[in-house]
Amino acid sequence: MVTAQDAPRGATPARPVAVAVGRPIGVADPRLFGSFVEHLGRGVYGGIHEPGHPSATPEGFRGDVLDLVRELGVTVVRYPGGNFVSGYDWRDGIGPVEERPRRLDLAWKTIEPNTFGTDEFVAWCRAAGVEPMLAVNLGLGDIRSALHLLEYANFPAGTALSDERIRNGATEPHDVRLWCLGNELDGPWQLGHRSAEEYGDLAARAASAMRAYDETLELVVVGSSNADMATFGTWEHTVLTKTIDLVDHLSCHIYFRDEGDLDAFLRSADRLDAFLDAIAATIAHVQAATRSTRDVRISLDEWNVWDFRAYDELKPGRVFEEAPRILEQAYTHADAVVVGTLLQSILNHADVVAIAALAQLVNVIGPIRAEPGAPAWRQTTFHPFAAAAQSAGETVLAATVEGEADASLESVTAAITRTAAGDRVSLYLANRSTTTAADVDVELVALGATGIVQADLLWHPDPSATNTVDRPDEVAPRPLAATLDGDRLRATLPPLSWAVVRVACEPGRG
Amino acid sequence: MVTAQDAPRGATPARPVAVAVGRPIGVADPRLFGSFVEHLGRGVYGGIHEPGHPSATPEGFRGDVLDLVRELGVTVVRYPGGNFVSGYDWRDGIGPVEERPRRLDLAWKTIEPNTFGTDEFVAWCRAAGVEPMLAVNLGLGDIRSALHLLEYANFPAGTALSDERIRNGATEPHDVRLWCLGNELDGPWQLGHRSAEEYGDLAARAASAMRAYDETLELVVVGSSNADMATFGTWEHTVLTKTIDLVDHLSCHIYFRDEGDLDAFLRSADRLDAFLDAIAATIAHVQAATRSTRDVRISLDEWNVWDFRAYDELKPGRVFEEAPRILEQAYTHADAVVVGTLLQSILNHADVVAIAALAQLVNVIGPIRAEPGAPAWRQTTFHPFAAAAQSAGETVLAATVEGEADASLESVTAAITRTAAGDRVSLYLANRSTTTAADVDVELVALGATGIVQADLLWHPDPSATNTVDRPDEVAPRPLAATLDGDRLRATLPPLSWAVVRVACEPGRG
Amino acid sequence: MVTAQDAPRGATPARPVAVAVGRPIGVADPRLFGSFVEHLGRGVYGGIHEPGHPSATPEGFRGDVLDLVRELGVTVVRYPGGNFVSGYDWRDGIGPVEERPRRLDLAWKTIEPNTFGTDEFVAWCRAAGVEPMLAVNLGLGDIRSALHLLEYANFPAGTALSDERIRNGATEPHDVRLWCLGNELDGPWQLGHRSAEEYGDLAARAASAMRAYDETLELVVVGSSNADMATFGTWEHTVLTKTIDLVDHLSCHIYFRDEGDLDAFLRSADRLDAFLDAIAATIAHVQAATRSTRDVRISLDEWNVWDFRAYDELKPGRVFEEAPRILEQAYTHADAVVVGTLLQSILNHADVVAIAALAQLVNVIGPIRAEPGAPAWRQTTFHPFAAAAQSAGETVLAATVEGEADASLESVTAAITRTAAGDRVSLYLANRSTTTAADVDVELVALGATGIVQADLLWHPDPSATNTVDRPDEVAPRPLAATLDGDRLRATLPPLSWAVVRVACEPGRG
Repeated sequence: MVTAQDAPRGATPARPVAVAVGRPIGVADPRLFGSFVEHLGRGVYGGIHEPGHPSATPEGFRGDVLDLVRELGVTVVRYPGGNFVSGYDWRDGIGPVEERPRRLDLAWKTIEPNTFGTDEFVAWCRAAGVEPMLAVNLGLGDIRSALHLLEYANFPAGTALSDERIRNGATEPHDVRLWCLGNELDGPWQLGHRSAEEYGDLAARAASAMRAYDETLELVVVGSSNADMATFGTWEHTVLTKTIDLVDHLSCHIYFRDEGDLDAFLRSADRLDAFLDAIAATIAHVQAATRSTRDVRISLDEWNVWDFRAYDELKPGRVFEEAPRILEQAYTHADAVVVGTLLQSILNHADVVAIAALAQLVNVIGPIRAEPGAPAWRQTTFHPFAAAAQSAGETVLAATVEGEADASLESVTAAITRTAAGDRVSLYLANRSTTTAADVDVELVALGATGIVQADLLWHPDPSATNTVDRPDEVAPRPLAATLDGDRLRATLPPLSWAVVRVACEPGRG
Repeated sequence: MVTAQDAPRGATPARPVAVAVGRPIGVADPRLFGSFVEHLGRGVYGGIHEPGHPSATPEGFRGDVLDLVRELGVTVVRYPGGNFVSGYDWRDGIGPVEERPRRLDLAWKTIEPNTFGTDEFVAWCRAAGVEPMLAVNLGLGDIRSALHLLEYANFPAGTALSDERIRNGATEPHDVRLWCLGNELDGPWQLGHRSAEEYGDLAARAASAMRAYDETLELVVVGSSNADMATFGTWEHTVLTKTIDLVDHLSCHIYFRDEGDLDAFLRSADRLDAFLDAIAATIAHVQAATRSTRDVRISLDEWNVWDFRAYDELKPGRVFEEAPRILEQAYTHADAVVVGTLLQSILNHADVVAIAALAQLVNVIGPIRAEPGAPAWRQTTFHPFAAAAQSAGETVLAATVEGEADASLESVTAAITRTAAGDRVSLYLANRSTTTAADVDVELVALGATGIVQADLLWHPDPSATNTVDRPDEVAPRPLAATLDGDRLRATLPPLSWAVVRVACEPGRG
Repeated sequence: MVTAQDAPRGATPARPVAVAVGRPIGVADPRLFGSFVEHLGRGVYGGIHEPGHPSATPEGFRGDVLDLVRELGVTVVRYPGGNFVSGYDWRDGIGPVEERPRRLDLAWKTIEPNTFGTDEFVAWCRAAGVEPMLAVNLGLGDIRSALHLLEYANFPAGTALSDERIRNGATEPHDVRLWCLGNELDGPWQLGHRSAEEYGDLAARAASAMRAYDETLELVVVGSSNADMATFGTWEHTVLTKTIDLVDHLSCHIYFRDEGDLDAFLRSADRLDAFLDAIAATIAHVQAATRSTRDVRISLDEWNVWDFRAYDELKPGRVFEEAPRILEQAYTHADAVVVGTLLQSILNHADVVAIAALAQLVNVIGPIRAEPGAPAWRQTTFHPFAAAAQSAGETVLAATVEGEADASLESVTAAITRTAAGDRVSLYLANRSTTTAADVDVELVALGATGIVQADLLWHPDPSATNTVDRPDEVAPRPLAATLDGDRLRATLPPLSWAVVRVACEPGRG
């Protein structure tokens, strides 16, 4: 581990930066700290589920992973896909394990043993203390199958399907409230890919039928798979026009990677800002054009840093195998700083984003890694997520970075939350400069700050440093020297760093 | 019961009204007196089917209801829906009763036990002496399932499906001739709701496939759910353009209710006239535009008085239960007069309407009511329907009401039928004025009238009077004082009344 | 049998015709000599499959038919339809024979016993030495079922479906490489008929999913059912625009018949030329318009002479029966000459056609006939097909007919192939005149001709002569008097005749 003393001031003198705290801009839904488990690679098998592992629970869940999931502060987990869901028949994943069929998954070219299915996932969610978010298959699946899953999962008892769930061991209904109406149907790679017109009609039919079962469900309609889709914007417009009064959330996905230009990569959050702004504008437009009063919000249910080049291992020619080692990206310190800034962007869009899910959770581009013979460990990206998830208050306050007068104007980014009681303010601060430290001065006017509760810094001298099974804490938080002087909070952020500072306040102020 | 002597002349002097009998305008298809049994509320369970009832047949059919159905004169019964069919899997309703699955019905938020299904329905039809009219599921169902139902129902023997029917007890094929291609797919509430384009394509595919099985089937394609649909007219145009050479009938539905203005409610038949005229015009237009010579007729397969406000009990929040008491509307005397005038309208459109079905038959907005511990009884609306169904001749003659010169011009309405042999003429007369009796003078020129066979009046001093389990005959027909003077038939209709007069004639005249 | 001495010179003096051999125009794919077995009439049952027949193999395949199929030189056989496939569920045709369901086939109004299915067909292909070409059901079927068939057929082992195939006796995967994405979905008669837009979307979804399983499959997308379809051309344009980068071949079908004008009938190949040219132009256009570099070729997977009037037996009213005697056309000598000229046309389009299938193989408009109590026999059309299939070289050379100066200009037609080694040149020559013989003079410049290996003539004095079970060789090849004089090959073709001449050459020339 690198110690705090190693943190440099940078090659050039530290730049003074002022952060102004403004009015509340939105309620931070706890579900902004969601994640995603897909039947992909070793995300499920060898990830959250490994019956033979020393830490395994009686259900076969890895206990060490469960511990890390709780520590990560994840609130909601989307399942079972992703691309996987568009070829999935949920009935393959229920009933006596020994009778479940082994299937080919064409989304990821994998043999799916189906030893883990809906019932296991919900049980795992209960064990992890997270809310399940299920996707129905609107790719190769049909609406009736989706309705049957809904009834199987949620109806208390007394029908063929609910009694089948009880026979399968789940005497209480799973009571899943959050449902995704398929996954990325805008993508030509998706099994059952459709035009916006076709998908919009299908989603409306599915949503209407699911609401006929339970009008209180929260439904998520599919938006764009990424900002570079040729149909980005028009897809949302068409689909939402057909479904706005039937759904609660509009899904969107985005991934970022270092394409060889670290400075550009470090500005990923600017692109996330623009992405969310654009989608929010589309929602507002469709609301106006359809005279809808429905409050549809964004479900950013896949986001992360992901080196798409890793897709190479998915190229033609790979043979079908079970739980292959694919997409097991080792995250760097730079990736962690980017993840931290993406979390700031999400918080700063709390007025339009209701759900966000870091994709994914374990092994497959996840903050947690697990190997068969070893304890699970935290990737670099685990740390900013956990810090934010554990400390975020209910209200997001506007954060304005001031006082930078040159090209590196946007090097420091910030997000600020306050608890509903007003007794805690949390500041999330990043320094995206690779060369210059920042002397940050935050004016906590009218918040009644009384003391610093926590001040942690994520920094490493090597932007490409990673955590491995042998050096699991190479990149980890360290104490940050921060001072509170009346209403002024001061701290110096070394180049390429991310920090969280929690400040105790007098309740009821501000 | 109120006796005939109570019938008043009205608050003002009786108005003289002349009715002229004109040329034949159409053949009255016996199927104009159809009805409808849906899996909804207590229409099936506790309606036509109640194994424990004292009058139950060995099959569990209520004998008292069967008797009333025969008395009602129903000719054809549509089944199993209605909205229900769009979520129904017919296979759930066949085979050993104890093995049939309990399902959720999302159309009416009900638990469906499936103890009554296709085989039971056809057996019930045979017991009731009515023709079955089956709907296939083109909502959430698919064409192959529809074809399998068709084969199961109609193929004599020697295939897996026909042999399965035989094993289920139906050794003879059901030989169902009338098939509905789904139900109300134009309605956003419908499971599997589609655009006219999509439904038209789907219906064409289904019709073509069903005709490949049996080119002589009569197929009914879905038209508008009511006259107020935003797509009324355009839906018919689009769907019929795609299907005209593949179907026999165009379905349409309409309901009427008293919205607080009794006079307006009593003129419901005027709106039915306009509705049927509009649909007939659309059919004629599409025939011309497509150069089709196919004689497509209207199947008005849902019509009735229905207080939509009763829909309140279907609002969100109701729990799923089996055979709930819903839509059990108690019909008033005024409702019965309206039903009588709607029957006149249907008869007067015999040139364009081939099938009509009073929706529904028992308990659920039906002319028959049944309670577990008591004999079934006739609602007020039973009487005009039974009177017309039992007496209508094969030919409808034009009936023109003359001699009214003021605002109440249309207070008297009439329809006239003659038997094919010419030995009977039946007159259906209504007085829709709530204040003034009508002295009706019908000139039966050239029909060779020889005497009055029957003259019944439906009247009650209280427009809101109903029949109940305790007072089942509160509203019932009574003798009408009518006289025949040569070719002139004379009778006085009290305010808010409906009458049938049957006249014997010399066969072969007119 | 008619002997060669009977061949007349014709009513008028023989016309001199010169044939010039040009440059290579394409590679003759061996799959140009494909055929087609559909579950239709006695094509399968009583055709290739008849367990009780004296020649039957242990699997129940007719051995005499297998012998004739090998003699015919067929390379690839399409299965199971045709129209049949659009209502077929492949699962009905696998597993223990005694448990397979008897189904109605609505495409041909037949009872399908399902005692022959996919596993039997592939085993038959192996016995016959032909490649299987399977069609998936995109009519009433769905993509998931197609994917399951693909996995069942091709996946080695270890999944529910592949293990099921092994249990059913096929331990090795069938490894089917050629797959048709449905059949004739442009035809209103087709179960599941769709618009080009709808089918194009569906085919793209299916192709994409099948490629997700195996990117090396060869996929055939549906083109026009015949040249007279109102949508001919536009269908191909729309469908190919949506699928060009996902498919390998564009299917098209065409049949010819004598409509009472023998001369016109004999010019059928001219229409086939125009048909193939038009489709090739559409492919080239879509390639250019979509900037696609994909080499899509024509799969002419149904072609033949077929007297559509025989369709009478398929008119309404026929009852469902098993393996009915339908479409068992007895081919004439004139038909054989036309088939020979159609083969010339196919060879001369080797640059754009990759696959061609004579529809069909046995009994149902097939070159082979089989009766229960007798040996199978060759129809007249067997002979030109076998002659071409057995002798065609890998390269097609341009053949230009010259020297005719009047209205019968195109009476002689020709196609020429050369082996890859250059050691054999095969000439296919037809004289379509019904009155005048042709003295044909072929200049084999630069090919190094050394001698005539084979010279066979198909000729009969009666254009309507047929082969029957009693006179199976009435129409059969006979020796043709041909001479080689240096580079000049000379032969006289009597009126209405077809000939093959094989010439030995010095390898490596030309």
